[in-house]
Amino acid sequence: MAVNSPLPVAADLKPVAGIDIGFAQAGIKKPNRKDVLVMTLAATATVAGVFTKNRFCAAPVQVSKANLAAVTAGGAPIRALVVNTGNANAGTGESGLAKAHETCAALAKLLGCEPQQVLPFSTGVILEPLPVEKIVAGLPAAIANLKQDNWFNAAEAIMTTDTQPKAASRTVTIGGHTVTMTGISKGAGMIKPNMATMLGYLAFDAKVAQPVLDQLVRHAADQSFNCITIDGDTSTNDSFMLIATGAGNLEVDDVASPHYAVLRDAVTDIARNLAQQIIRDGEGATKFITITVEEGSSVDECRRIAYSIAHSPLVKTAFFASDPNLGRILAAIGYAGVDDLDVSKLDMYLDDVWVAKNGGRNPDYQEADGQRVMKQSEITVRVTLGRGDAAATVWTCDLSHEYVTINADYRS
Amino acid sequence: MAVNSPLPVAADLKPVAGIDIGFAQAGIKKPNRKDVLVMTLAATATVAGVFTKNRFCAAPVQVSKANLAAVTAGGAPIRALVVNTGNANAGTGESGLAKAHETCAALAKLLGCEPQQVLPFSTGVILEPLPVEKIVAGLPAAIANLKQDNWFNAAEAIMTTDTQPKAASRTVTIGGHTVTMTGISKGAGMIKPNMATMLGYLAFDAKVAQPVLDQLVRHAADQSFNCITIDGDTSTNDSFMLIATGAGNLEVDDVASPHYAVLRDAVTDIARNLAQQIIRDGEGATKFITITVEEGSSVDECRRIAYSIAHSPLVKTAFFASDPNLGRILAAIGYAGVDDLDVSKLDMYLDDVWVAKNGGRNPDYQEADGQRVMKQSEITVRVTLGRGDAAATVWTCDLSHEYVTINADYRS
Repeated sequence: MAVNSPLPVAADLKPVAGIDIGFAQAGIKKPNRKDVLVMTLAATATVAGVFTKNRFCAAPVQVSKANLAAVTAGGAPIRALVVNTGNANAGTGESGLAKAHETCAALAKLLGCEPQQVLPFSTGVILEPLPVEKIVAGLPAAIANLKQDNWFNAAEAIMTTDTQPKAASRTVTIGGHTVTMTGISKGAGMIKPNMATMLGYLAFDAKVAQPVLDQLVRHAADQSFNCITIDGDTSTNDSFMLIATGAGNLEVDDVASPHYAVLRDAVTDIARNLAQQIIRDGEGATKFITITVEEGSSVDECRRIAYSIAHSPLVKTAFFASDPNLGRILAAIGYAGVDDLDVSKLDMYLDDVWVAKNGGRNPDYQEADGQRVMKQSEITVRVTLGRGDAAATVWTCDLSHEYVTINADYRS
Repeated sequence: MAVNSPLPVAADLKPVAGIDIGFAQAGIKKPNRKDVLVMTLAATATVAGVFTKNRFCAAPVQVSKANLAAVTAGGAPIRALVVNTGNANAGTGESGLAKAHETCAALAKLLGCEPQQVLPFSTGVILEPLPVEKIVAGLPAAIANLKQDNWFNAAEAIMTTDTQPKAASRTVTIGGHTVTMTGISKGAGMIKPNMATMLGYLAFDAKVAQPVLDQLVRHAADQSFNCITIDGDTSTNDSFMLIATGAGNLEVDDVASPHYAVLRDAVTDIARNLAQQIIRDGEGATKFITITVEEGSSVDECRRIAYSIAHSPLVKTAFFASDPNLGRILAAIGYAGVDDLDVSKLDMYLDDVWVAKNGGRNPDYQEADGQRVMKQSEITVRVTLGRGDAAATVWTCDLSHEYVTINADYRS
């Protein structure tokens, strides 16, 4: 189903020393389905995360933020993460918070650590009470099958409307040390992350100081999960967690270290891969669209225009139909809220086809050329604003009948 | 097709003294279809309008704005309006502007006035050259059938993907004088007006001074066309024109006049009716949704939250499916960009059903009650923020398979 995104192969997902993974079928929403994931960390591990800016941020997001802040304030390190699907524990008020704490306490007791050393995550339906007793009942089974080589199962355990698991793995040599990185993510609707995506976890076996990891996670998120959108709906549960297990030989204590830049680029590259997998498997997606806006006076205005194009239902349905009705893209640029935009300096390209010139139709543009590109499954829209040298890129997908079908049936 | 919106009856649309209407089948995009509309005005008429804020505003919008400004600067009054469907003349650069001027010049010559006394309007596909020669060729036929009692034909002549014409008419007595008002509008996609809707025309036979009419049109638009959205796509061609023909006995020279408030409320009421007809006939609409946000600290934040709900594809598909997956509404509230929103003070109602209380699920809420309301064809979402006394209302529709079908096929 996903657009040009082959199924990850379990054997390609490299174990990361210092992190063990277990899962359970807890029957949270449906039976016989992996729906609880536990990750336990070496004592040397550091963890950093970015979370949704949605004001209705979910109870587990609130607890995870607080527990990470406690580490920064000098508390004991994070020892485990626990994820459930089938219920978002969002819009659940005080009782939702209590249930997120209860999950942490149950896992901490089994692992012999403090509840504050556990980070909880949830994804699924909003505004419904979390069946915490099912999660707690599933934890012993998850702990029983903890092992390093469980990333494929982890990717499957966090799926909701995803049609396939999302994972990526690579090794990189930094300062003579081999660093192994593996990550997983999930979509597939309510995706317009603002600081992070629905759920993404990326681990590697270097030892990284907390302030360095904090900076690294923000950089990677801004260049990956914060550049994607499926439907413009920023979720209540977005979380992207970066875990440095410290089990390898590389150590990075300072962002000024020459090793930092290499690590940052490797982490960002794999995060971008995970983010793009979410778009390729976006609900109902049949096309993968890259939107690049260049020559802006600020990155912010470039992003605003790129998102305006990416969110337009009319643009998205035109992509679905392979219809070069490209004036819809101009309209979306025009209402993006860049009030002093001089459209007479604007050009637009569809892949290699020069469609709009100086704000109007390029006299040399032939509809057959636009049609040829629109039929592809991967398309790049490039807009040049002619007012500066800032640029931004956003990845999105089309809007199909299948999107409506999926979201009209989600809870059934 | 339209949601609870009966077809206007031609006999109910009252002629307005001082305005004559003619139409033609000019074959702009398809044969045998009314696609050119001409309205001629009495010498006593004043005209005021509001237009799209889209930076890619269409060539005819630029010309109409300039010609209205010329009147305000002391020029000769507007004598005619000309509308074509089938082509938006937007994203067409300098040649598009020349063609809009050519349309005005051709009509002015036939009517014996100056080109600046004509306001041009276009609606249809963006980024395609306007076939101005077809419009010009159609003008004599339109002039030949000019008459006062032609409003139903006018409503039909401006339709694009609309499934039915939109019109409303009424009389109101002000200061002992009977004022007759009739208006028309069109949708049905690329609808999230910012200052006005795609096309709306409202005429009445009072004599109103230009500064009074300028204020009146802004008030009416803000309370009607500026409160609707179908797909969040602000068009390049939005225009709402208010015409006071001056052919009746009522005169309003000052907004401080006691007659002004009565006139304002009557005009606003009919404008709201026309705006709501657009939503009821929104592309693929099966439900008419009213979203009211109350107890805000400003009207702007109430509108922002209401639009965030109204634009969420997940909320819109849930309405289509009659699925009370109401957590999606909370998510849309949470990402609306009101950064200091305290969700613990927020309540949400679906018609009379109290769904969310203090930011969480109301303990007394029963899903069966939510289900009952979701099955209706007219639904009100009411959100109370608990932080002030400002309020705003937005009208929208659901997102159905039919929307995707229509917009994947629009140009075929």
